[in-house]
Amino acid sequence: MKKQLTDLACLGGLPLFADKLYVGRPNLCSREKLHAALDQIFDNRWLTNDGPFLRRFEEKLQEFLGVRHVVAVCNATIGLQMVYRALGRARSARKKALMPAFTFIATAHAWEWEGGQPEFCDVDPERHLLSPADAAAKLDDDAALLVGVHTWGQPCRIAELEALAKARQIPLVFDSAHAFSNFHGSRRIGGFGDAEVFSFHATKFFNTFEGGAITTNDDALAAELRHMRNFGFAGYDQVARLGTNGKMQEISAAMGLCLMDELDALLETNRRNYRAYLDAFRSCPGMSLLQLDKPDSLNCQYIVGVLAPDSPPFLRDLLADVLWAENVLVRKYFHPGCHRAAPYAARAPAPVLPITEGLCRRVVVFPTGTAVQPEQIRQIAETVRFVLEHADDVQRQRKKQP
Amino acid sequence: MKKQLTDLACLGGLPLFADKLYVGRPNLCSREKLHAALDQIFDNRWLTNDGPFLRRFEEKLQEFLGVRHVVAVCNATIGLQMVYRALGRARSARKKALMPAFTFIATAHAWEWEGGQPEFCDVDPERHLLSPADAAAKLDDDAALLVGVHTWGQPCRIAELEALAKARQIPLVFDSAHAFSNFHGSRRIGGFGDAEVFSFHATKFFNTFEGGAITTNDDALAAELRHMRNFGFAGYDQVARLGTNGKMQEISAAMGLCLMDELDALLETNRRNYRAYLDAFRSCPGMSLLQLDKPDSLNCQYIVGVLAPDSPPFLRDLLADVLWAENVLVRKYFHPGCHRAAPYAARAPAPVLPITEGLCRRVVVFPTGTAVQPEQIRQIAETVRFVLEHADDVQRQRKKQP
Repeated sequence: MKKQLTDLACLGGLPLFADKLYVGRPNLCSREKLHAALDQIFDNRWLTNDGPFLRRFEEKLQEFLGVRHVVAVCNATIGLQMVYRALGRARSARKKALMPAFTFIATAHAWEWEGGQPEFCDVDPERHLLSPADAAAKLDDDAALLVGVHTWGQPCRIAELEALAKARQIPLVFDSAHAFSNFHGSRRIGGFGDAEVFSFHATKFFNTFEGGAITTNDDALAAELRHMRNFGFAGYDQVARLGTNGKMQEISAAMGLCLMDELDALLETNRRNYRAYLDAFRSCPGMSLLQLDKPDSLNCQYIVGVLAPDSPPFLRDLLADVLWAENVLVRKYFHPGCHRAAPYAARAPAPVLPITEGLCRRVVVFPTGTAVQPEQIRQIAETVRFVLEHADDVQRQRKKQP
Repeated sequence: MKKQLTDLACLGGLPLFADKLYVGRPNLCSREKLHAALDQIFDNRWLTNDGPFLRRFEEKLQEFLGVRHVVAVCNATIGLQMVYRALGRARSARKKALMPAFTFIATAHAWEWEGGQPEFCDVDPERHLLSPADAAAKLDDDAALLVGVHTWGQPCRIAELEALAKARQIPLVFDSAHAFSNFHGSRRIGGFGDAEVFSFHATKFFNTFEGGAITTNDDALAAELRHMRNFGFAGYDQVARLGTNGKMQEISAAMGLCLMDELDALLETNRRNYRAYLDAFRSCPGMSLLQLDKPDSLNCQYIVGVLAPDSPPFLRDLLADVLWAENVLVRKYFHPGCHRAAPYAARAPAPVLPITEGLCRRVVVFPTGTAVQPEQIRQIAETVRFVLEHADDVQRQRKKQP
């Protein structure tokens, strides 16, 4: 426990932990199972292209998510690009997709890559989710698509976004990168809007090395996406449309299948840690944790700290620097916000996003997952409290250092 | 050996082979090595994002290919899209890329996906490679890029294409999907033009499950592509440009590293089979094999039969159908040609590509690789001779069948 400034690792003390604690440390399936799957893939001599592991994985996800179609892809960004093209760029000459700026850059880049221009909207201060009101205000005749993001795994304000998209007759896509296995009411995320896109990237709590999946209840869209994923092939030697290579390879599908067996345990660990963080940060002047509605229906893979609105500008970066030195590798998601990243930052007029601006400079995401124990969480919280109490002194001392 | 029509499997006989022989049957590395690599990846808990296997794989390829930069990617199509964007679409408003139509559809689709329009050129009848003369004739002020394809692994007419690109001041890209490990003169394919793109797809003789690599000697381009591959990130939390997810995962890089150990043996097998095919087809009226210059400097992964120019229109499809029934799964590459596939077929004016048209209806690609033995090759050639001798009778008998 840190009792004086020089106990802090950044000021010469010992780090809180000998091993680094990460946000998004990859979860691994049973080695034995994946080795067995690899043997099976070698026996099949079928490494990609709609192989048996891919088919089983897609079927398993369809059942699990309660959605008619799962199209597994090589990664979620390519999945977003495919969906954006199919539902947006290929259907109209309109350029804009409305989306939050408080999201990982791929939400925006995928649309820009497809030749569109993101129109950034603000989020609400409590849950950090796309504001339907701001989206409605920015929705004009150049809007091709509405993109909700289930940030931190929380369901968007789905009904309001669906109503908005329907009223304006534009498709609705959800970036569900954070939301695998999560519920909205009694239904799992995956079947809302026209399509949803999940990430199974290594740093997500459920991963396929790299990978992702598009989900939809629209039969025609699913067929289009399956063709698009495989160079537009609609049959043997028959290219029916423009396509790319969005295929997930067999070994990735095998990882996904094996990890599905661990899902309950991973969820339980994440929820245990979430409760431990809530408890540990219950009294932490200057910092509050994002409180999830119904955490037992969510994967709780992100532990989101938010500094008080009146925090001094240096505080979040100071806190992050101090914690990194303690081997607590917090992340400053989503700093600086998509609207302040290239190529969007150079565009005029800059969008007015006061809530996003505040969150981008006040959010700290904490490590969780199987490598993080409740006792460590208590120590992290104590260290944060100590830093916040002595922030000005820590800042002064750090500036003195060579 | 087939002595009468009813010996043919399609007419009631026994198939020539009990097991199917494939074009592009995946080559596998040592299982033990890949299992060990998987253990290492689990120990590292590092599944993607510039991990140690990826770095070693890129370094190994740089050395092997003799090129300054190798940027491994999730697949060659995404690699082509990245290169086309960096060298073409991002640099000018010009729409055209000149390329052969006698190529896999991804060569064209990647450009179209990036918002360009392929301008299809013809090939030469002997080696099936992009005709510099036709490219020169079609090169106008709307041309952004020249794309050579090392079809069947043979080096393009590189010097002529380089001169043409230089004279017109447009970048030159090679689609090197077929050409891994091959030489042009004393240098390996990989360092020519502004960039080259290799495929390591499962069906290539050297594979990484799915995967590919961009190679270039241009430092600035390599840096741009590395950023582009990783969402435009140029540093921690710093997005410097538009990007996508083109990353190759660790297990794929591990497969590549392990297969590099088998490369000499795989090349020797392919060359042995190539010589056996040449020998077996030496006297085969109506069909000739594509003869490679210096086959010992090439990977010989494609065995290309070309029916005589005066063949009846039904012959190639008949031959393919007959051979499939014999479990010899030949492929009709590149039927029908990119220019006759969607979305290009609908465009006017249709390009005039007489050599391509002829090849698209007369080429048959034969199985090779480690599963194919010289004795089988002799049997395949005998069957082909038998079919070509009795083509009209076979065709009549097949039509009689229910």
